[in-house]
Amino acid sequence: MNALQNLNIEPVENDELRKLLQYNINQKTKPVGSLGFLENLAMQIGLIQQTTTPQLKSPTMLTVAADHDITAEGVSPAPAEVTWQQVKNFLNGGGGIGLFCRKYGLELFVVDAGVNFDFESHPRLIDKKIRKGTRNFLKEPAMTIQECDRAIQNGRDVVASLAEKGSNVVGFGEMGIGNSTPATALLSVYAGIPVEECAGPGCGLDREGIINKAEVIKKAIEKHGISDRPEENLATFGGLEIATIAGGMLEAARQRMVILVDGFITTSAFMAAYAICPTVRDYAIFAHCSGEPGHKQMLEHVGARALLNLDMRLGEGTGAALAYPIVEGSVAMLNQMTSFGEAKVYNVADKLGQ
Amino acid sequence: MNALQNLNIEPVENDELRKLLQYNINQKTKPVGSLGFLENLAMQIGLIQQTTTPQLKSPTMLTVAADHDITAEGVSPAPAEVTWQQVKNFLNGGGGIGLFCRKYGLELFVVDAGVNFDFESHPRLIDKKIRKGTRNFLKEPAMTIQECDRAIQNGRDVVASLAEKGSNVVGFGEMGIGNSTPATALLSVYAGIPVEECAGPGCGLDREGIINKAEVIKKAIEKHGISDRPEENLATFGGLEIATIAGGMLEAARQRMVILVDGFITTSAFMAAYAICPTVRDYAIFAHCSGEPGHKQMLEHVGARALLNLDMRLGEGTGAALAYPIVEGSVAMLNQMTSFGEAKVYNVADKLGQ
Repeated sequence: MNALQNLNIEPVENDELRKLLQYNINQKTKPVGSLGFLENLAMQIGLIQQTTTPQLKSPTMLTVAADHDITAEGVSPAPAEVTWQQVKNFLNGGGGIGLFCRKYGLELFVVDAGVNFDFESHPRLIDKKIRKGTRNFLKEPAMTIQECDRAIQNGRDVVASLAEKGSNVVGFGEMGIGNSTPATALLSVYAGIPVEECAGPGCGLDREGIINKAEVIKKAIEKHGISDRPEENLATFGGLEIATIAGGMLEAARQRMVILVDGFITTSAFMAAYAICPTVRDYAIFAHCSGEPGHKQMLEHVGARALLNLDMRLGEGTGAALAYPIVEGSVAMLNQMTSFGEAKVYNVADKLGQ
Repeated sequence: MNALQNLNIEPVENDELRKLLQYNINQKTKPVGSLGFLENLAMQIGLIQQTTTPQLKSPTMLTVAADHDITAEGVSPAPAEVTWQQVKNFLNGGGGIGLFCRKYGLELFVVDAGVNFDFESHPRLIDKKIRKGTRNFLKEPAMTIQECDRAIQNGRDVVASLAEKGSNVVGFGEMGIGNSTPATALLSVYAGIPVEECAGPGCGLDREGIINKAEVIKKAIEKHGISDRPEENLATFGGLEIATIAGGMLEAARQRMVILVDGFITTSAFMAAYAICPTVRDYAIFAHCSGEPGHKQMLEHVGARALLNLDMRLGEGTGAALAYPIVEGSVAMLNQMTSFGEAKVYNVADKLGQ
């Protein structure tokens, strides 16, 4: 694939810097390790930015939208037009993601990767439409390799332009009626988990609906088979928003940006990116564990711990936006929290030689 | 106890309002229930304030500090002077709680409930010192009933004055070297859990230290016995900051304020308040589950789900401050998120008659 050329993602590990960061964290006026996972976050962001004083600049949310002809198989209780209706809602600052981006200080852009609707231009809408929805992957591959390649490249281009404008932290979310079906297929394919063990309700299927959805995915996997090349599986079972997000994440890592991963669908895009280039993992913060049951399996597969666990299953990037103040808190701790020396507080760890 | 007079805490339940709130939440442009625990929070705050449009006003953090002569038994690796050193640090905006209150927009006051130090006056310091630390409860009750009564009353008075100034949301945190020992004793006493099953490292004890701590608490409980009256147990095994916080929580509930409960020590104070008047539970939001193992047992005992689970174990109120933006998010959802009607988005649930 052309879009996977020049994809040099550096691992963040740096022994010397890790030691320095750990020293600085341990000098803060608190028992060693007592800020728990917040300390891990601060460490990760320091390593990503290769500095003991990381800064989060121009945080951006990309909510990528597309439609899915797999909805013809009755895999979603919501009609497909909700995709474009919600895109308009988000552009007007509405919906969960419009609200939370405003509230928590992230700049929101909606990327049209393949919505079945002709939008008027809008300053927050990025037109990267490849076609008006993916094909029904029960019958034929969702995307051609070329389409998938273009979607990945689009994601890379959008993120590269954010980086150019000075953003160094980007959240990803999605909107696409039916997209928990491709996401579940990708989970099954990339993690090797039987479909019936990972299919869930998505935006609200009942038990019978879930059984049907699992059946559709199972048949599709039997029909197309699983490729050795992760990008081919992405083309066959994925979605245009999923491929665009995967490309965006790869570019974000290449640019040494902090990646905020949202819920089930967004993490399926992360799984694709991770299968293509595992080093992307170093740059990713997993915002929350969704109420969609398969999300836990995804997080386990990529060895991730989620920041929040609030049974949210809205997507759009809402979990990532909600977790962002905590990410900011970890960086503030590193840069602004008083040290034992500054505050003249007795340092127990120091005396114990910890 | 005098401090427990006029303690009329109303339950928040209101069937009609609950239905109205649920209707409004379900009209938001999202699948029904898809904001998970955030929806429960919004419901709770609406019920607390008895309105479909709750507002969080002048959020305040009370970090209550005191010393503990039980430290003579070697139950903490940190020297007792860290209590007053940290109080000074907090007053200067330092430490975890100074930082996070600034960052997340909570006004911080430090309450001296019984620190072994003479502080100069400071606009953020509230002097409610009863004595310079509780007594060693291995030898005699930590407080007399009268002292405990005064501490509860002090907490009530401080919170009543916040309410008078227009605050309707108050977080509680603490500082007190040695205070995981009284907190563990209260957990054991109120929840009926054997001490060896709930004693933990506190701010950093090793395995041997934990065994000693458990032994100290066990002996103390054997010596004093357990009273039928929760306030007597609080006096015998508690701390001045713990009793002050318990009183503050009871008053906050009486004033229909939202209570943000921090970690292990603060939740031990909540357990005392809850044992005195279970209705206080309706007003409490449990900010996080601490890395201190007994905290999970406390939360189970009061039937609470914590918002965050980040292995933090710093206390001070830091978990409550860190969770505050999420609490704000739940209220913003209720007040500001677009409804299906406003956004002209197809409402699946409506068509299904959900």
